[in-house]
Amino acid sequence: MDHKARQERLQKTLSSHRLDALLVTHLPNVRYLCGFTGSAGVLVVSGARSVFFTDGRYTEQARSEVRARIVIGREGPIAAAAEWFSMHLNVSRKSRSALHVKIGIEGEHVTVAARSRLASLLPSGMRLQEVPVLVEQCRMVKDEEEIKRIRSAVLLGASLFDCALEKIRPGVPETDVAAEMEYTARTRGAQAMSFETIIASGARSALPHGRASRSVVPRRGFVVCDFGVILNDYCSDMTRTVYVGRPSSKERGAYQAVKEAQQAAVNAVRPGIAVSEVDRAARNLLRNKRLGKYFTHSTGHGVGLEIHEPPRVAAGQADILRPGMVITIEPGIYIPGRWGIRIEDMVVVTDRGCEVLTPTSKELIEI
Amino acid sequence: MDHKARQERLQKTLSSHRLDALLVTHLPNVRYLCGFTGSAGVLVVSGARSVFFTDGRYTEQARSEVRARIVIGREGPIAAAAEWFSMHLNVSRKSRSALHVKIGIEGEHVTVAARSRLASLLPSGMRLQEVPVLVEQCRMVKDEEEIKRIRSAVLLGASLFDCALEKIRPGVPETDVAAEMEYTARTRGAQAMSFETIIASGARSALPHGRASRSVVPRRGFVVCDFGVILNDYCSDMTRTVYVGRPSSKERGAYQAVKEAQQAAVNAVRPGIAVSEVDRAARNLLRNKRLGKYFTHSTGHGVGLEIHEPPRVAAGQADILRPGMVITIEPGIYIPGRWGIRIEDMVVVTDRGCEVLTPTSKELIEI
Repeated sequence: MDHKARQERLQKTLSSHRLDALLVTHLPNVRYLCGFTGSAGVLVVSGARSVFFTDGRYTEQARSEVRARIVIGREGPIAAAAEWFSMHLNVSRKSRSALHVKIGIEGEHVTVAARSRLASLLPSGMRLQEVPVLVEQCRMVKDEEEIKRIRSAVLLGASLFDCALEKIRPGVPETDVAAEMEYTARTRGAQAMSFETIIASGARSALPHGRASRSVVPRRGFVVCDFGVILNDYCSDMTRTVYVGRPSSKERGAYQAVKEAQQAAVNAVRPGIAVSEVDRAARNLLRNKRLGKYFTHSTGHGVGLEIHEPPRVAAGQADILRPGMVITIEPGIYIPGRWGIRIEDMVVVTDRGCEVLTPTSKELIEI
Repeated sequence: MDHKARQERLQKTLSSHRLDALLVTHLPNVRYLCGFTGSAGVLVVSGARSVFFTDGRYTEQARSEVRARIVIGREGPIAAAAEWFSMHLNVSRKSRSALHVKIGIEGEHVTVAARSRLASLLPSGMRLQEVPVLVEQCRMVKDEEEIKRIRSAVLLGASLFDCALEKIRPGVPETDVAAEMEYTARTRGAQAMSFETIIASGARSALPHGRASRSVVPRRGFVVCDFGVILNDYCSDMTRTVYVGRPSSKERGAYQAVKEAQQAAVNAVRPGIAVSEVDRAARNLLRNKRLGKYFTHSTGHGVGLEIHEPPRVAAGQADILRPGMVITIEPGIYIPGRWGIRIEDMVVVTDRGCEVLTPTSKELIEI
């Protein structure tokens, strides 16, 4: 990963936001910019330099991971960064037209209390300014190395579906299915699951976020399996819905509709269109089949260092797709108290359209 | 869990903070107060009522879990709550001495951007006020049912140490040890691990937060095992450090020092003393053995619905221990590039002292 290049790209955007420095506190952003994988560290990006601040627990780890100057703060990373601002960002040198030194903070991540604490540590003449998700905007378009890693994560993740298929039987607790998948993920090199594994069977399949529970797979019904891994820091995410027993023709029809909606959204993905168009493609198809009101969530989201990252693939979202973006396409329908169906792939936007990364068949599997 | 009683206790604190309502957005706090376990929901606590807001994905789940009035927001929970404020908190009824309706927000959790968005949704005459961790303060003292659940989580967690002992052998990847523990946790009913399992062997044991990696256990050296589970929504947390091969007398002495420091801190726990005293007990012991500078983190933290929650057991922290508080006691020393040792139990503060919940021996085990 070329961390220096990422820092330089960010540095270039600072002046357009009239910032003297940006304080990066959101850990996936810190990791993206300088490589740090620990849980307490902040990165300051200013003019031509980047400085990383952490505490004593991470001295060792920072030295082995971080591509930036390293400062170990006795009172924690934020206090150390504040001290550095006081010493290195010279208020007196500012011209009259810019009396204040402006330090950007990540508005979507910094809490109200953290902002107050930071402000109290700064000398007068320095001002904090809330900025939008600048680093996430850089992160939306993945470079070659990132796509390579995402591919590996997707393949490892997809291989777990076979474990699920072997394990899903009437009477088996959902958590046993999840346990088998997670164990296999670990032994195949995953750092962790990218989110709590969802195995939602029978009436529980109507819960879009039904994490695996002690409920047992019923003798008949849909089972939604939504899962992913973290491999080499990058996430995967996929969903398949299988049927235990023989589905009714209505259930079969509903599955087919979700599958077509998912394909319609995949077909819509290409550079230059807004993410809302992708959402619309899936939604229109389900609406035409009078299933629209059961599609109660958005169509997808970006995936990378985080399992959910920009863009949101949803109605009203204006982000324009560009080559290198990696998103999920995951329409679903949920009939309260009865059943649910969701199908999800990850795709990478290419020069002309997209490539579906998830290798797994979407035909309805009956168990 | 008596959610109504919890809401009522919180309602009583609102007037002392001169709040007309509190908007609870931190999910573990929402769960504590009304039982919701999903990922998108907020609770408004005001005067004599509580209202829960979520979105369409959680209609089903909210109905089955939540102990409060439920509102499903089309534009998401925050927008729905803002609309409710406008309709139900009457500005005109306020006396002259309190012209504004004051809505408390959780300063440690609400982001700067979320605060701005919320403010823009409110009518004039309503003001947001940052409040300290009110709900966490309620949560610090656990009730009987909570302690029962924590006990179960601690016992399930502790049972995983046997898996680790069976699996730790020279040449085995750290992740294989973690995989075995996590699989066992799942099959024994854990919802998830309470944090990423730390298996840090050889020189990696000097990393206080060395999550299990593909590194293999060396032929000789310490292995730090730090792990926990979530069972019935409550977390466990424990650390044991074992030795592969035969330790040198210096290593043995260092282990003994950490063990004594841990015991000294456990002995210090009783109602009425400040958490900083507990930290001091461990720190003084290590200082007297000239190991103080290698103890680079705090002594412990509260555990409950979250793996880290107040109080922090650290120097300078003023929280006073009360019966029913559950904290970890986990001193450690780390010699950069060489090795590390940490020993951690969970304890519950009793009327006279404390009870160690973790049942596992702290004698040095040689493998």
